[in-house]
Amino acid sequence: MTTEQLHKIRHSLSHLLAMAVLEKFPQAKLGIGPVIENGFYYDFDLPEKISETDLPKLEKHIKRLISQNLSFRQLNKTPAEARNLLGRQKFKLELVTELEKAKKPITFYESGQFLDLCSGPHVISTKEIPADGFRLTHLAGAYWRGSEKNKMLTRIYGVAFENKKILGAYLAQQAEAKKRDHRILGQNLDLFAFSELVGKGLPLLTPKGSVIRRELERFIVDEEVKRGYQHVFTPPLAKTELYKTSGHYPYYKDTMYPPMRVDEEELILRPMTCPHHFMLFASRPRSYKELPLRYAEISPQFRYEKSGELTGLMRVRMFTLVDAHIFCTADQVEKEIENVLRFIDSSNKILGLKKGLDYRYRLSLGDRQDQKKYYKDDRAWEYAENVLRKILKKTKAPFYEAPAEAAFYGPKIDVQVKKINGQEETAFTVQYDFVMPKRFNLRYIDNRGKEREPIVIHRASIGCLERTIAFLIEHYAGAFPLWLSPVQVAIIPVGKAHKSFAKKLFQEFLRSQIRVELYGDNETVGYKIRAAEKQKVPYILVIGEKEKNTGKLMIRIRGKKALKVMAKLEFLKDLIERIKMKK
Amino acid sequence: MTTEQLHKIRHSLSHLLAMAVLEKFPQAKLGIGPVIENGFYYDFDLPEKISETDLPKLEKHIKRLISQNLSFRQLNKTPAEARNLLGRQKFKLELVTELEKAKKPITFYESGQFLDLCSGPHVISTKEIPADGFRLTHLAGAYWRGSEKNKMLTRIYGVAFENKKILGAYLAQQAEAKKRDHRILGQNLDLFAFSELVGKGLPLLTPKGSVIRRELERFIVDEEVKRGYQHVFTPPLAKTELYKTSGHYPYYKDTMYPPMRVDEEELILRPMTCPHHFMLFASRPRSYKELPLRYAEISPQFRYEKSGELTGLMRVRMFTLVDAHIFCTADQVEKEIENVLRFIDSSNKILGLKKGLDYRYRLSLGDRQDQKKYYKDDRAWEYAENVLRKILKKTKAPFYEAPAEAAFYGPKIDVQVKKINGQEETAFTVQYDFVMPKRFNLRYIDNRGKEREPIVIHRASIGCLERTIAFLIEHYAGAFPLWLSPVQVAIIPVGKAHKSFAKKLFQEFLRSQIRVELYGDNETVGYKIRAAEKQKVPYILVIGEKEKNTGKLMIRIRGKKALKVMAKLEFLKDLIERIKMKK
Repeated sequence: MTTEQLHKIRHSLSHLLAMAVLEKFPQAKLGIGPVIENGFYYDFDLPEKISETDLPKLEKHIKRLISQNLSFRQLNKTPAEARNLLGRQKFKLELVTELEKAKKPITFYESGQFLDLCSGPHVISTKEIPADGFRLTHLAGAYWRGSEKNKMLTRIYGVAFENKKILGAYLAQQAEAKKRDHRILGQNLDLFAFSELVGKGLPLLTPKGSVIRRELERFIVDEEVKRGYQHVFTPPLAKTELYKTSGHYPYYKDTMYPPMRVDEEELILRPMTCPHHFMLFASRPRSYKELPLRYAEISPQFRYEKSGELTGLMRVRMFTLVDAHIFCTADQVEKEIENVLRFIDSSNKILGLKKGLDYRYRLSLGDRQDQKKYYKDDRAWEYAENVLRKILKKTKAPFYEAPAEAAFYGPKIDVQVKKINGQEETAFTVQYDFVMPKRFNLRYIDNRGKEREPIVIHRASIGCLERTIAFLIEHYAGAFPLWLSPVQVAIIPVGKAHKSFAKKLFQEFLRSQIRVELYGDNETVGYKIRAAEKQKVPYILVIGEKEKNTGKLMIRIRGKKALKVMAKLEFLKDLIERIKMKK
Repeated sequence: MTTEQLHKIRHSLSHLLAMAVLEKFPQAKLGIGPVIENGFYYDFDLPEKISETDLPKLEKHIKRLISQNLSFRQLNKTPAEARNLLGRQKFKLELVTELEKAKKPITFYESGQFLDLCSGPHVISTKEIPADGFRLTHLAGAYWRGSEKNKMLTRIYGVAFENKKILGAYLAQQAEAKKRDHRILGQNLDLFAFSELVGKGLPLLTPKGSVIRRELERFIVDEEVKRGYQHVFTPPLAKTELYKTSGHYPYYKDTMYPPMRVDEEELILRPMTCPHHFMLFASRPRSYKELPLRYAEISPQFRYEKSGELTGLMRVRMFTLVDAHIFCTADQVEKEIENVLRFIDSSNKILGLKKGLDYRYRLSLGDRQDQKKYYKDDRAWEYAENVLRKILKKTKAPFYEAPAEAAFYGPKIDVQVKKINGQEETAFTVQYDFVMPKRFNLRYIDNRGKEREPIVIHRASIGCLERTIAFLIEHYAGAFPLWLSPVQVAIIPVGKAHKSFAKKLFQEFLRSQIRVELYGDNETVGYKIRAAEKQKVPYILVIGEKEKNTGKLMIRIRGKKALKVMAKLEFLKDLIERIKMKK
């Protein structure tokens, strides 16, 4: 089926939905009913409240209408005719007045007894609509024309696909995504919180959420140090002038926080780390012997996002990028980028993301015609794009090309991670920069004593910690691998008599730097086991008479029915080893 | 000698300095010449530039004046008489006009032929001045009356003490302090940098400085986790409203950055962490079973400091506090504070600071009369102050009491660290807070199901990382203990023939997570050894024929003349062990 046909089906379904609603509530006033991603909606001013339990009845009604093989027919009307036809449909009348003012044609679509102000397109007959390919999904409140000054209408959402099978797959994925939604899991597992008094898009990580962040931080810093990166700490704000010098300012100013006047300086929160690292590079003379010089930072950054776009940890107004800038010679650039890609592959693997399945690469190219957005140097662009393409091919990376998606200073490779709802999101990037070194007049002395300009590679190894945590919550549905689990072992004493033994065990695990939680003795064992399971703790140890006497442990492994018996020291050793191996 | 007498001596020396300068430059115009800490200065408008090499001559001249047993005599004058006496001394004439306007008495002091507008007091005779107890130390430019709209004068500084011995000790300490000045060492050892484009008081830590910060961070986080703290991450900014609710705003607003308008919110960079942790505490209901609940954070904070007060890493405009807030019951508060003090002692010991010698405690009390600054609740203050005093006595902490130094919400214990220049600075604090829990309506459910208000203990275990790093640089004069050293081992191949063996060794150390630097082969061995010594690397390995053949290492230990011979594996094992033990 073509996307045009699917679009017509969805649009026609929104009209059938309006017909069904009008039969139930003849006094209903109609808003608009457009096609959206995966489906459609229609807004209504209803005489009484309806709930989601009413949706199946409406669905049945729509199916009945489909089976009547109704034809859709377009009609052109004058404003006066339109007003006459619409009668008391006040929202539609508003639209007619606007069309009239704008001198636009006024068209209606007729289906059966129903006439709707609409510019189409629609199916010719409801015969074309697969009756088992759609579903009304949910209700929401929506202000007429999106303005809170207007009346709140009832919006009914639906999805529609080519057939029952595709619809089923979509609904199953949505159900799974909902179960894995990091905002819901984040609250249930007590990983992060928001506060009205702190502000929008500014998450507070709880102790448990902070464990995950700390483990990720230490993991990536250690890995980067091993790979010859030098971690630094630079301030998360600077004079506005710095971002004007870098050329970032015009591109970023709309998403930057307002500037702050401090004495004679105008300071602003940073939306990126690059110019800070350039300042460090420029803080003393550099020799070719120091290159490649790789500055890395766990870098707090600030960007304004519209409040409607803020989404848990996925989209926030302050984020922490695992950022780096590699200063190198032209000869070194290929090897460095290749190493970055291999590094991303290896760290993604540790995070549990499979290449090709959970993520793929996008080669984001410049646009030679767009001199407003992109720095003009066709040869440099051509060269840099070819270097990136060559490396992607060499490393057999699954990738596709996207024109006009580059940064203003050079082409880039984006790591596109697939979210649980099926959408792709850019998680990490590797960027080739031949512009900034010029702007900041960065220099090194080559082996003949001559001043040369380095090339800069911008890269984020595991992206923004906040977003990566959101990805991981959804990827693992909260059941983190051992090394990332906020609580690794839960110890549950059966009764009072086992408390002191359980406590000794707890202390022993603690000393071995295992994150362990000891449950109190006020509730039943069953209740405590369920509580630990809800928290998705990888290992649960119930400590009763047998354990106390034999010293052997009965281990409940997350997701497995059978218990495993193990000697304490053996279990501890195994845990320590697997935590070290990041399993 | 009384401090009054020392004050008179210093003041009289400033007059003698003016006499000496006027004899050399009769046309000189005099500014003011007050007493300052440890000495005095005098400002002059001189007909020609002088340099510090001129100071010994002036000193000699002053000594001659002292030996003349000149008397100091006070004279009262009318404004007209004063103007007559001062002649062309235009700066002094300005002062006379002001005194006249303010209807203040106009007094002069006469010493020998010299008359100076001055309110005293002075010594009766220069006989009282120990001629070998003073020294002219340095020159500086200073605007008349501190305003850059006025003329720049030459300020001559001097120090003066009871006798030659005390002067000598003071000068020696100053010389040592200068050698250890973290700003100078920070640059020589490449630990941090400032950038004109980034802004004042905003240091950038280089890779080497960042190693120290990272080691400190990981050390303290691990220690705190072991002690039952739960580390969190909260945003370094929030709505202004948050700080108004906490009551911090009126006390801190002058040192806070300007607010930023973002949509309907007014955000501001945080000057403290407390209310953020309160928001986390309040993010869900709390039970007595969770108490004591200890939130800790490596917390970035922002406070405005006057540009004249910014000092390297010691005083900055953004700092990172190792902060914590302990929420506990009244019964738990004593034990918790005691644990905090013991923890501070133990971590100070690891940092190399000796109790009583390098730091002592200050009990900062409230002021029952000052209801404007301090929350009014006499009983609560009395109780809290006694608790802190009791703990200090119990732990045998060297401490003194300071009235009216408390926080507005309760008394505190300050850890006063002695800087290398002899001055004390508050490095860490432990604060007892009975006010904030009320303001934020913090609650927990006690064992009878009743709502109760917790007490909050604010504490900083190792203070601000920036300031602590500055302390440590000065304390160790840059020769950090092994675990904090940015480079732990330097490997220096003697010639080209030893390069590949040296490189193998380098890789081996790297794999063992030793911070190792391999020197190239362009310079002489002597040059490379001196370079590594200048960088204060704890261990230097020179790799020549013998090392290559025997596999034994000749180890140059920092600060020791004799070389130590050790097998490679033995040395590695020893290093790893001592790094782990934080030695």
